Amino acid sequence: MNSRRLCIGLFGFGTVGRGLYELLENTCPANVELRRVCVRNIAKHRDCEVDMTDNADDIFQDPQINFIVELIDDADASYRIVSRALREGKPVVSGNKKMLARHIEELIELQGITGTPLLYDASACGSIPVIRNLEEYYDNDLLLSVKGILNGSSNYILTKIFNQGKTYSEALREAQEAGFAESDPSLDVDGWDSLYKLIIITVHAFGTYVAPERIFTFGISGMNDHDIRFAMEKGRRIKLVAHVEKLSGNRMTMCVMPQLISRNKYIYSVDDEFNGVVIKGLYYDKQFMFGRGAGGHPTGSAILSDITACLYDYRYEYKKRNHPSGAMPEFTDDVTFRIYCRYSSPHDLSLIPFDRISESYTSDGFNYVVGETSLHALHSVADELRQRGIFVAAYPGD
Amino acid sequence: MNSRRLCIGLFGFGTVGRGLYELLENTCPANVELRRVCVRNIAKHRDCEVDMTDNADDIFQDPQINFIVELIDDADASYRIVSRALREGKPVVSGNKKMLARHIEELIELQGITGTPLLYDASACGSIPVIRNLEEYYDNDLLLSVKGILNGSSNYILTKIFNQGKTYSEALREAQEAGFAESDPSLDVDGWDSLYKLIIITVHAFGTYVAPERIFTFGISGMNDHDIRFAMEKGRRIKLVAHVEKLSGNRMTMCVMPQLISRNKYIYSVDDEFNGVVIKGLYYDKQFMFGRGAGGHPTGSAILSDITACLYDYRYEYKKRNHPSGAMPEFTDDVTFRIYCRYSSPHDLSLIPFDRISESYTSDGFNYVVGETSLHALHSVADELRQRGIFVAAYPGD
Repeated sequence: MNSRRLCIGLFGFGTVGRGLYELLENTCPANVELRRVCVRNIAKHRDCEVDMTDNADDIFQDPQINFIVELIDDADASYRIVSRALREGKPVVSGNKKMLARHIEELIELQGITGTPLLYDASACGSIPVIRNLEEYYDNDLLLSVKGILNGSSNYILTKIFNQGKTYSEALREAQEAGFAESDPSLDVDGWDSLYKLIIITVHAFGTYVAPERIFTFGISGMNDHDIRFAMEKGRRIKLVAHVEKLSGNRMTMCVMPQLISRNKYIYSVDDEFNGVVIKGLYYDKQFMFGRGAGGHPTGSAILSDITACLYDYRYEYKKRNHPSGAMPEFTDDVTFRIYCRYSSPHDLSLIPFDRISESYTSDGFNYVVGETSLHALHSVADELRQRGIFVAAYPGD
Repeated sequence: MNSRRLCIGLFGFGTVGRGLYELLENTCPANVELRRVCVRNIAKHRDCEVDMTDNADDIFQDPQINFIVELIDDADASYRIVSRALREGKPVVSGNKKMLARHIEELIELQGITGTPLLYDASACGSIPVIRNLEEYYDNDLLLSVKGILNGSSNYILTKIFNQGKTYSEALREAQEAGFAESDPSLDVDGWDSLYKLIIITVHAFGTYVAPERIFTFGISGMNDHDIRFAMEKGRRIKLVAHVEKLSGNRMTMCVMPQLISRNKYIYSVDDEFNGVVIKGLYYDKQFMFGRGAGGHPTGSAILSDITACLYDYRYEYKKRNHPSGAMPEFTDDVTFRIYCRYSSPHDLSLIPFDRISESYTSDGFNYVVGETSLHALHSVADELRQRGIFVAAYPGD
C-alpha cells in the first residue's frame, strides 16, 4: 500500500462531480481529500460546503493540490485542463469522452513525454470496468470484437418503447423527466456519445485510433412506429449498438447504429439505463459485462476507482499500441452487411447501393427493403439519410 | 512494454495444460516460450511434440526456465511446486483452487518475503476476470457482496434439468459425456469446487481468509424430482450459488448452497457450463460478469492472460488486506434466512431449529417446510443432512 495522499482539485460540479463529492463525503477515504472545486458559476453551488473557485489557476497554483479530476462538459476546456495537468506533472482523471475521442493520441504522447498518468475508465460505460479490462486482461492478441450498448439514455428510451409499448416521444419525455436525457438529447439518441466511447474502447482493444468523422454513426431519433412494429413482428428489439470487430488481413471495422437484436443475444436483455458489453475472443468465446452506465453515483464510483488506482501508480500501458507482434489493425468500412431500410420515395432508396435486396415492401404509408449494402456506402450518405428521414438498422441473421 | 522473455516450465498436461499448449502453438507470442512439461506419466503424452519429463528437478534446475505454470490436480503436490517456485524466485501461475483455498494465507506471506509473484486468476471462473477486477477495480471499500455461479459442471446439469426437463441422472450422464463432469462428480455437484473459488474471491473482495470447514457448503446431488417440481411450480430455477456478503458491524458471511432463483435475477439466465458473477456495491449498484468458466481453451486463455500480466510486472497487491481503513471484516454464520427443506421423517425435520415456519406440506412421498433458520444451525448439521437425504435450498423473497 502506497502511503501517498491525494489532494484533489476538481473541475466541474455537475451530476458526476456532485456524485463523486457525495461518495467522498460518505466513505471518507483516509488518503484522498477533495480540496477545491472549479466551476463556471460559483453562485449556483452556494449550498455546498466544499471550497469553490471560478479560476483554474486557483487549482493549478495551489501547491497542496497534487491530483486533478476533470468532469466538465466542454470538450475544448477539458482538453486545456487535462493537457495542462499532464504538462505540470499532476496525474489527472477525466470523464470527458468527446474530448478523449478527439485528442486521445496527443494525450497518449503527452503522457509518454511527461511520465504523468491520465486515467479515464469512467468515460466509457460508467461503472463497468471495460477499458481497464481490455487493457489488462484481454492482452493476448486473441480479441475478436467488442460490441455493446454504451449509452444509457437511448437504451432507457428503447426499453420504454419495446418493453412497455410507449411511443418514441413519450419515452423521450420520460427519460428526460427521470434525468437520463438532456434537454437536447441528440448526443445520446443520435449515437454520438456511443461513438466517442467506442473510439476510446477501440484504442484499448486493438490499439488503433480512428477519428469520429470516419465512422458511420446513426441514431434512433429517426425511428418511427413502423420500424418499431417491424422489429416486434420479427421478435426483435431495436438497440443502439456500438461495434468494433477485427477482420482478416489485419483490418478492423467500427460503427454505431441501431440493430434489430434477436432474443438469443445477451444485449437483448440489457434494459433501462444499463450498459452491456460483449467481448469476443478466439479462445474464451464470449464475455459479457453489464452494469450501470450512467448516473452520478455509479459514474462517481468509477471516477473514485480511477483515483485510487493512481494511489497504486496504475497507468494505462496502451499495450495494443506497443505490441511486439507489430502493426495495429487498419480501419476499413469496406464491409457488407444486411440492413433494414425504411424510406418514403423510390428516389430515397436509390441513395443506397444495395448488393442484394432480399425483401421489399411498399404501401401507402410505409416502404422498406431488407438488403445487403456496405458500411462505406451508408457512411457516405449518412447526412442525407438523416435529412430525408430514412431509417436504417442492421438486421443480422439469427 | 517489457522486453523480457518468459521461458515456461509447465506442471500438468490435463485439459487446461493442453489448452494452454494449443493456445501458445496457435498464437506464437514473441516473448513467451513453453520449454518443458512435467507430468506423472510421460508415456501418455507421446503424441505431443513438447519436451516432457517426470522429474520436477528437470524444471526447477533448468537455468533457462524463469517462469512456472502449475496446472495439476493434486493439491499437496501443487502446494509443493508453488511454494518451491516462490522460494526459488521464479514467478508462478497456478490454477489449483483447492490448494489455494487451503494455503492462500501462507502463499501471500511467502510472496511478501520473497518478492516473487503468484497469479491465479484462472482458478476462479476460468475466463471471467473476477479476481483481478475485485483486486483492481472495486478497491474503494464500497463493495457489498459477490454472488455467483462458480461451477460450470453443476450448472450444466441444472440447465439440462430446468430448461430441457431431464432427470438429474440423465443430466449428470450428459455432462460427463460432454466432458463437463469428472467420473467422480462430487467436487462439482456437492459444492466443494464453488467453495474453494469463493474463498479465493473473498480474500480479494474483502481481505478476510476463511478456512473451508467453517463455511456451510451444500450441493445438488441430493436434489430429487419433488424439489425440481417445487421450484418449477414457483416459477424458479435451482442454481448452485456461492455467496459472500458484508454485514453490519464489520462482519461478513459466506455460504455455498442451492438457491431457488426467480426469473428477475441475473443468474437465472446463466445457462449450461457458463459462470456468472454479480458484484454489488454501495454506489454502483450491480455489476454482472458472465463467461465461460470451464474448458481447456477458455481456462488456458485465462492462464495465458496471467502469464502476460507477469511480463508487465503485475502482481496482486491484496489491497483489502492492507487497507488503511483498518480491520478486515470478521466471518460469521450467525445469519438468518429463508430455506426450503425437503425431508422424510418428522425426526429429520427436528435437526434444524427453525425460527419460524411459514409453509408446511406433508404427503405420503414428499414433505417439506419453508422456514427461517440460521446458517450456523445448517452448518452444524450439514453432514447429517447429507446422510439422511434431506435437501435444503435458500429460498429468498422475490
